[in-house]
Amino acid sequence: MSSKSLPIIALLGGTGKEGPGLALRWASAGYPIIIGSRQREKAEATAAELNLRLGITSIRGLENSQAARQADICILTVVYTAHQAALESLRADLQGKILVDATARVDFRDPRPPSPPAAARLAQDILGPGVRVVAAFQNVPAFSLRKNLGEPLHADVLICSDDPAAAQEIIRLAEAGGMQAYFAGNLDNAVVVEGLTALVIGLNKAYGIKTASIGVSGISR
Amino acid sequence: MSSKSLPIIALLGGTGKEGPGLALRWASAGYPIIIGSRQREKAEATAAELNLRLGITSIRGLENSQAARQADICILTVVYTAHQAALESLRADLQGKILVDATARVDFRDPRPPSPPAAARLAQDILGPGVRVVAAFQNVPAFSLRKNLGEPLHADVLICSDDPAAAQEIIRLAEAGGMQAYFAGNLDNAVVVEGLTALVIGLNKAYGIKTASIGVSGISR
Repeated sequence: MSSKSLPIIALLGGTGKEGPGLALRWASAGYPIIIGSRQREKAEATAAELNLRLGITSIRGLENSQAARQADICILTVVYTAHQAALESLRADLQGKILVDATARVDFRDPRPPSPPAAARLAQDILGPGVRVVAAFQNVPAFSLRKNLGEPLHADVLICSDDPAAAQEIIRLAEAGGMQAYFAGNLDNAVVVEGLTALVIGLNKAYGIKTASIGVSGISR
Repeated sequence: MSSKSLPIIALLGGTGKEGPGLALRWASAGYPIIIGSRQREKAEATAAELNLRLGITSIRGLENSQAARQADICILTVVYTAHQAALESLRADLQGKILVDATARVDFRDPRPPSPPAAARLAQDILGPGVRVVAAFQNVPAFSLRKNLGEPLHADVLICSDDPAAAQEIIRLAEAGGMQAYFAGNLDNAVVVEGLTALVIGLNKAYGIKTASIGVSGISR
């Protein structure tokens, strides 16, 4: 990718809850967006919906492996039960890219904190050193992403990676989407960020709400 | 304990970093405080220091088992490597009490997220059903506790317990000490709260600061 143009972003498994919201935010900010799915038709349908909402035509829908090959930065937003199989099938397509793993291995019906290693550490192990893995966006509420696209989100993004330069690229991407983002350590730390999903579910249940979130304070940048 | 008087609070392993700060806050709020230590002399020395700072004489120092027996609510603030041994040795003394486990099993020199089960779940398993275990105060910065005792702390406390009534008692105790506290689910969730220590260390390192903290938002009470 050239230093002047924005990177191409692919949302792999991008037809679910999280992918379309992130796609809307980044398309609004001018990023070229590809929606990926195992079925090209589903990807094209989601892309068409998002183009309609934004009054644009630039968002494309492709099968996941084609989406990965054409992108600079890939965001993995599959359901957590499909995490390992998706990574294994996309291993070759992802070489040389940044892979952002948004997986939180928490079952909403039976929320329990996941065990180390982090999903993103497993991703790095599956993909090998040729892929720059970053963990991010595990806890961003999908309903917030879709609302008021031009306004900042009240959701902090905790970024974990073994590659600080890749982490910085994703911090810029998060900020372009209206999110505050913070570098919070290496890929191992991402298991805690996954587990925040269980804490947020616990807080929402305890207080009878749907709006609890966990944020960062004490950092001035 | 009577419904009119405040419960007696024992800080077990209360001569370290965290215990004295919590003791200062609660003594200032009028709670009867006992400092516990494996060595009675150390407990008495810490109690004397705290009394001197507050201009009072009511804080007592006792050997841990005596402290536990005389208290209504015990806060375990031992270093995490002493966690299991402390609980096993205090098992009989803690029956019928609330035991607040403030343990975060994170090594500051090599910070990694701990694995489930949570330290507080291990505590409940060791102590049995006759002790009401609550996980809390794992991430409250010791240096903040000791400053400006009358002012609110900018630190949110996430409370995990299988016993919601015990959790409510500890929420009241946290608030009496100037902390905002939130009930965040059962004891299993406490492993995530322990892991926040690794995230905070990661944030502090990334930004060259010592003030990062994790807080709760989106809850109005």
